[in-house]
Amino acid sequence: MQEYILKISTKDAKGLIYNISKVLFANNLNIEQNAEYVDPETKEFFMRTIISGKVMQTILLKELKEVLPLGSNITLNQNKRKDVVLLATKESHVLGDLLIRYSSNELNANIKAVIANHEDLRSLVEKFDIPFFCISATNLTKEEHEKLVSQKIDEFNPELIVLAKYMRILSSSFVEKYCGKVLNIHHSFLPAFIGANPYKQAFERGVKIIGATAHYVTNDLDEGPIIYQDVVRVDHSYSWEEMRNAGRNVEKVVLSNAFELLLNDKVFIHRNKTVIL
Amino acid sequence: MQEYILKISTKDAKGLIYNISKVLFANNLNIEQNAEYVDPETKEFFMRTIISGKVMQTILLKELKEVLPLGSNITLNQNKRKDVVLLATKESHVLGDLLIRYSSNELNANIKAVIANHEDLRSLVEKFDIPFFCISATNLTKEEHEKLVSQKIDEFNPELIVLAKYMRILSSSFVEKYCGKVLNIHHSFLPAFIGANPYKQAFERGVKIIGATAHYVTNDLDEGPIIYQDVVRVDHSYSWEEMRNAGRNVEKVVLSNAFELLLNDKVFIHRNKTVIL
Amino acid sequence: MQEYILKISTKDAKGLIYNISKVLFANNLNIEQNAEYVDPETKEFFMRTIISGKVMQTILLKELKEVLPLGSNITLNQNKRKDVVLLATKESHVLGDLLIRYSSNELNANIKAVIANHEDLRSLVEKFDIPFFCISATNLTKEEHEKLVSQKIDEFNPELIVLAKYMRILSSSFVEKYCGKVLNIHHSFLPAFIGANPYKQAFERGVKIIGATAHYVTNDLDEGPIIYQDVVRVDHSYSWEEMRNAGRNVEKVVLSNAFELLLNDKVFIHRNKTVIL
Amino acid sequence: MQEYILKISTKDAKGLIYNISKVLFANNLNIEQNAEYVDPETKEFFMRTIISGKVMQTILLKELKEVLPLGSNITLNQNKRKDVVLLATKESHVLGDLLIRYSSNELNANIKAVIANHEDLRSLVEKFDIPFFCISATNLTKEEHEKLVSQKIDEFNPELIVLAKYMRILSSSFVEKYCGKVLNIHHSFLPAFIGANPYKQAFERGVKIIGATAHYVTNDLDEGPIIYQDVVRVDHSYSWEEMRNAGRNVEKVVLSNAFELLLNDKVFIHRNKTVIL
Repeated sequence: MQEYILKISTKDAKGLIYNISKVLFANNLNIEQNAEYVDPETKEFFMRTIISGKVMQTILLKELKEVLPLGSNITLNQNKRKDVVLLATKESHVLGDLLIRYSSNELNANIKAVIANHEDLRSLVEKFDIPFFCISATNLTKEEHEKLVSQKIDEFNPELIVLAKYMRILSSSFVEKYCGKVLNIHHSFLPAFIGANPYKQAFERGVKIIGATAHYVTNDLDEGPIIYQDVVRVDHSYSWEEMRNAGRNVEKVVLSNAFELLLNDKVFIHRNKTVIL
Repeated sequence: MQEYILKISTKDAKGLIYNISKVLFANNLNIEQNAEYVDPETKEFFMRTIISGKVMQTILLKELKEVLPLGSNITLNQNKRKDVVLLATKESHVLGDLLIRYSSNELNANIKAVIANHEDLRSLVEKFDIPFFCISATNLTKEEHEKLVSQKIDEFNPELIVLAKYMRILSSSFVEKYCGKVLNIHHSFLPAFIGANPYKQAFERGVKIIGATAHYVTNDLDEGPIIYQDVVRVDHSYSWEEMRNAGRNVEKVVLSNAFELLLNDKVFIHRNKTVIL
Repeated sequence: MQEYILKISTKDAKGLIYNISKVLFANNLNIEQNAEYVDPETKEFFMRTIISGKVMQTILLKELKEVLPLGSNITLNQNKRKDVVLLATKESHVLGDLLIRYSSNELNANIKAVIANHEDLRSLVEKFDIPFFCISATNLTKEEHEKLVSQKIDEFNPELIVLAKYMRILSSSFVEKYCGKVLNIHHSFLPAFIGANPYKQAFERGVKIIGATAHYVTNDLDEGPIIYQDVVRVDHSYSWEEMRNAGRNVEKVVLSNAFELLLNDKVFIHRNKTVIL
Repeated sequence: MQEYILKISTKDAKGLIYNISKVLFANNLNIEQNAEYVDPETKEFFMRTIISGKVMQTILLKELKEVLPLGSNITLNQNKRKDVVLLATKESHVLGDLLIRYSSNELNANIKAVIANHEDLRSLVEKFDIPFFCISATNLTKEEHEKLVSQKIDEFNPELIVLAKYMRILSSSFVEKYCGKVLNIHHSFLPAFIGANPYKQAFERGVKIIGATAHYVTNDLDEGPIIYQDVVRVDHSYSWEEMRNAGRNVEKVVLSNAFELLLNDKVFIHRNKTVIL
């Protein structure tokens, strides 16, 4: 019997849980897991439910819509591996970590392809029998390059796009097209050290802890909704390169944790924040 | 309008959430917060709900009982400060931390009294205008001493008893009498270093991290359901006394976190574990 | 036999350790602990040594000067409690934590006085039999107020001044006068959320981790050399007040760790950073 | 110019640092980094120094021996990549993590070979062009099997052997032969959950934090000197398999941190503990 993940976000109202659970009960479905959250400030209601039983998607969605306020967001996904495309540039540590986890069957995903703007990572990716596409940006406008990248992505129709140290800034139109589907890892404990060379900035400031941040990509660079963060202690003896090396361990762990949350449909975007159920 | 915290634990069954939310809806109550959990192994269902509205306790409990399986545990507490009694011996760091938090209004509790088996902490406690009772164990059997302590506790009818480094082992009958109401802080990362002098044990073993554990007290010493744990890094340069000092910071933070969970009715005991919602 | 802590910072040169240890050896002193560090970028040498034996301060300092480069910084302090003055405003959590640690004998310090610009904390401080001085800033210029505060501080001739949530910005002249002696706790993980209301800023940004930073006070607000930092995990369910409460635990631990480092003469200021040996 | 790492451990004595630094100075060597530690209980002295200049090994070692107490341990290694052999069984996550770090040039090591007692990991290892040897234990006594493994190891003359989830218990004679050269990762926060299935044990006990421990292998299983530990928070919703998965991230980070310490000659074994300089 297949499991489904039901996600609902809507304006809070009296009787929401009652009405939703009535529909599930009437459809003879089991609730395997259930979590709700109401934002006390915005009065937005969030619910993530894992249901099992004989799910008839169209009927269920229709009946839920009838009991929910107009404009509610409802998604109903089968609880299964998601198709993913990775974007990278030259750095291998984050990409390599994802690939090795994938090969150890630690990721609930199908990695359909890796697209990079340089050739450097081809041999690494091909070790794992994953298609690698190099789309160089040389002699192309940003628009032209993104169009090619976007076409290649669309061939695989991924549910998620992971920027595994993809070092190019995405245009508004690209971000909008894949809105809510693009996960990035930023190599600092945001909002500290926005922009280039965060490890050098951290070194210059003499901080005692560095970190990494996984976030959705939005139009504002490094400003998207934060999904997961973690840190590691450093001290005066660290050069900025040693900070970067220490930070790389954190980047890997942070990205893989955030990725897992997305693969399990646990994340809601709420304004510029995330709700994780 | 008063808020109430409803806690339910029972055997899982189809339609539980539906039936419970139906009762709340019929009583015209708002669900301010709601969390559920089903243990996949034992099929036990847990629910913690903060409700607001005109709560008529007797009726609500009756109606909930009617829709829940026989033998369900249901509690309905007003969301307000709990009465607490602290037990201590001679060490001041944990007790002092609780008292200073209390005086800074950081605890959602009324500390009604401190009971100790030595006089050492009297002046500290009386600084904060809290009644201090010394019940010496000298020349008394364990049974006699516990009877006196128990009588004193009962004068204050506390909802919680916190062992703030109370260095006496409690008898079965004492533990049973206050079952589910006694919080202890153990100065190690349980189950490592059970028993006496855990910091010395940790020092001897050469561990690189030490910790503390807050748990419910049960008959098995240091074996009760764990509520909260935390750790701190140490290194070869720490003497065991320095480990103890580093550990004390952790003890304070762990106890105050666990205490807050209990004060907010967030903890369920499930066999020898806790479910925290 | 008294222990002394010798701290040296100077330009690195071949034979420094040899020359220093020769002097200590010739004076028949034991090296109880020793740590050195050379900044690979600035080539500055740092050394902290605990020595025991019959220390004749004037002679020892003279002989060390003779073997060290011109302009070396040498300090030689007896390893004993330092005199400290605390500055506060209205918030009790950090001050209370220091006082209760002090009363539990956890601090290697003599707290000579607490100076505040409001009366609110008087009863708390006087519980611990520590002199409390309220110097109101009302109707005074910043200059006039600081002059009074400074005079009061100087009566106690402290080796360290701890800002335990002192909510006034210090003038350049004040900072210069007590340069290298003033410890502050900032309620964010610097450099994130500089300025007012960091917990509100953190809440608005939707971060998943918050922190606190202890630093030396310099002219640039929140920009002084960082001594210690720590963090705690939060999630979407935290209001900004709950973030603040969670942060307060971190503030206390961070300040008390940094304070201990200073009380043990372990911190060197190097440009805008710290070296901790 | 080559750097060398000098490690000394010996009984503490007055003038040790002076005498050692005199020899280095007389040989016209630069001290690039230097750290010492004296165990206050055992009075053992430890020193790790990175020196540069024209190092004449034989002469330098001879002159150091002359100024050090009889029975001192002195090692002088060039600061360069160490040769390493990895042992594994069937689990890929730790081995894969090491291989991908190696391929990203994150390890200061030459991985000469992987030896396993099963064939499962061959394709993974061969992706990285590293020799893989399967030495099955089937139909062999422990002694016979270890002899074959040992012969294979010796072909590569490694400075370090890393047990990357090698699931066989080593005999005394094997351990003695490679004493101080064998690094193991244990999948629990030792000394909690010694023995088999630590994640299941942790699950049964209901702990709120799990961890991993990297240690030297000695005759007492899981009792060797601890090098590095780390932890991760879990809660009631984790099945034991989810605990294991969360723990695997920690295992990887812990092993790679401990490995790096060994590769940089930072670890001294002192009785059953480690001193890390």
